[in-house]
Amino acid sequence: MSFTPGDPGFEARVRASFSRQSIMTTLGATLTRIEPGMIEIALPFAEHILQQHGFVHAGVVATIADSAAGYAGLTLMPPGAGVLTAEFKINLLAPAQGDRLVAQGRVIKSGRSLTIAEADVFAETDGLTEKGPTRKHAARLTATLMSMRDRQGVAD
Amino acid sequence: MSFTPGDPGFEARVRASFSRQSIMTTLGATLTRIEPGMIEIALPFAEHILQQHGFVHAGVVATIADSAAGYAGLTLMPPGAGVLTAEFKINLLAPAQGDRLVAQGRVIKSGRSLTIAEADVFAETDGLTEKGPTRKHAARLTATLMSMRDRQGVAD
Amino acid sequence: MSFTPGDPGFEARVRASFSRQSIMTTLGATLTRIEPGMIEIALPFAEHILQQHGFVHAGVVATIADSAAGYAGLTLMPPGAGVLTAEFKINLLAPAQGDRLVAQGRVIKSGRSLTIAEADVFAETDGLTEKGPTRKHAARLTATLMSMRDRQGVAD
Amino acid sequence: MSFTPGDPGFEARVRASFSRQSIMTTLGATLTRIEPGMIEIALPFAEHILQQHGFVHAGVVATIADSAAGYAGLTLMPPGAGVLTAEFKINLLAPAQGDRLVAQGRVIKSGRSLTIAEADVFAETDGLTEKGPTRKHAARLTATLMSMRDRQGVAD
Repeated sequence: MSFTPGDPGFEARVRASFSRQSIMTTLGATLTRIEPGMIEIALPFAEHILQQHGFVHAGVVATIADSAAGYAGLTLMPPGAGVLTAEFKINLLAPAQGDRLVAQGRVIKSGRSLTIAEADVFAETDGLTEKGPTRKHAARLTATLMSMRDRQGVAD
Repeated sequence: MSFTPGDPGFEARVRASFSRQSIMTTLGATLTRIEPGMIEIALPFAEHILQQHGFVHAGVVATIADSAAGYAGLTLMPPGAGVLTAEFKINLLAPAQGDRLVAQGRVIKSGRSLTIAEADVFAETDGLTEKGPTRKHAARLTATLMSMRDRQGVAD
Repeated sequence: MSFTPGDPGFEARVRASFSRQSIMTTLGATLTRIEPGMIEIALPFAEHILQQHGFVHAGVVATIADSAAGYAGLTLMPPGAGVLTAEFKINLLAPAQGDRLVAQGRVIKSGRSLTIAEADVFAETDGLTEKGPTRKHAARLTATLMSMRDRQGVAD
Repeated sequence: MSFTPGDPGFEARVRASFSRQSIMTTLGATLTRIEPGMIEIALPFAEHILQQHGFVHAGVVATIADSAAGYAGLTLMPPGAGVLTAEFKINLLAPAQGDRLVAQGRVIKSGRSLTIAEADVFAETDGLTEKGPTRKHAARLTATLMSMRDRQGVAD
């Protein structure tokens, strides 16, 4: 599928919005790819984002997956419109461990008021041992995004 | 519905496990209620957990809701068993703003290998103005939890 | 929670709309309760609605649960508005068997464009043996409904 | 992704199980493709499977999508194992209308006790007018399947 950006300045717009998501700084997540309908976010494994068994918390996995899906949606929105998550569902496929998580969000269907997007999260391990680098499918999320237009305080 | 704890020491067990979830300290969340089949977690509004419009990020809402649902499940597990989230879905009902979020998790059905739990998240505002205190239903989550028994590293 | 109907004629409106859902006749489902924000649908166990192990098919359980949730939403809509399901999620809690299924739908949050509703499905067995009647929680559904206004062909 | 069937006779096994799903005959659905990890089911548009606006009911869309996902999972199961849906979520992307629906199910991750599968449903229209044939993405489902082994009455 190929998508047309809703705004020629979509890349700068996504970067500016992402930089306002204070939770991303708190977690240590960065934006690594921005394309029309597609966003990638990376999150290095770190001691302050874990659940009780030492894996990255499912909610943290969901946080980067939701932002990846949401910003994939935002790349297709016209200037001035904002995007809010109405709901998402996430299946956890493998423990979120390794050197980093990479969340790839993409739009499935872009509509006037609702956009459906999904995200896959991969757990990557660098290949410093003879086993070499690994990449496991850790999670799949689907989300319903609501476009907000002309609503005070909800843009980008 | 009333539930029988799976372990007489369920309260200490939940507290110890929660204290190992480093993400809870990172977010600022605390455990405020532990009963058989029911858990409450509170999260004060703070500048480091937000999305781009100044609301608490949907993923953060999901993080405390998932932990509340998961620990509600853990209160019913026999000693030595652990609990992992297989999937969850969350509907965001209102912007997560105010003075604090309160997530209430409870078990819907406790099974041998799968437990179904849900959580409601409320956004509370203290009544310092003439409007008085408010409490809005901000989110509803349902989760499928998998009980893990005799699996190295996955207990409590 | 108590709800105000969106239209004084909500009951007749729901009945008329339900009678146009040909799948309900095909399955054998009937409307057994209509209140503001709450709907009940009953489905007798029958040989033509099963999956391979002799239980009612999960999709059939979802069909009556989705209609119960959707019509619960419709009771609160103003005249002329229709309701479409944007998404739903269902957890199957117990095999759908017995003498009948009863789906109870209710509104969780009614909004301008989106309404969130849920439904519980119970599997009931009549008490013809000494065991007496039984009622098992068979499924829980949550749905996002979209209100459609002034859209040709989509009302009620 | 490529998958290894769990049983050399997976095709006959899926056909036999599908033929026991009486709801498929009731709806008019047929099995059109069986591959390791992948199943396709077709459902011609018909007057007896509709909701109130004349579209195929969301629950019917979910029924064929759930069976497609479930049988995709069954193709990978060892002899004697059965599969039950623990939960599914479906996003409805476009009204289910046209000449037929086609549901394509595929396995995302096959595990010892849980299998995660998804399905896409397309609404196809034959090209009898100058507009030519059309194919719209009507729905996306994700499901958690539970493998059942050695459980009386739950195989295939």
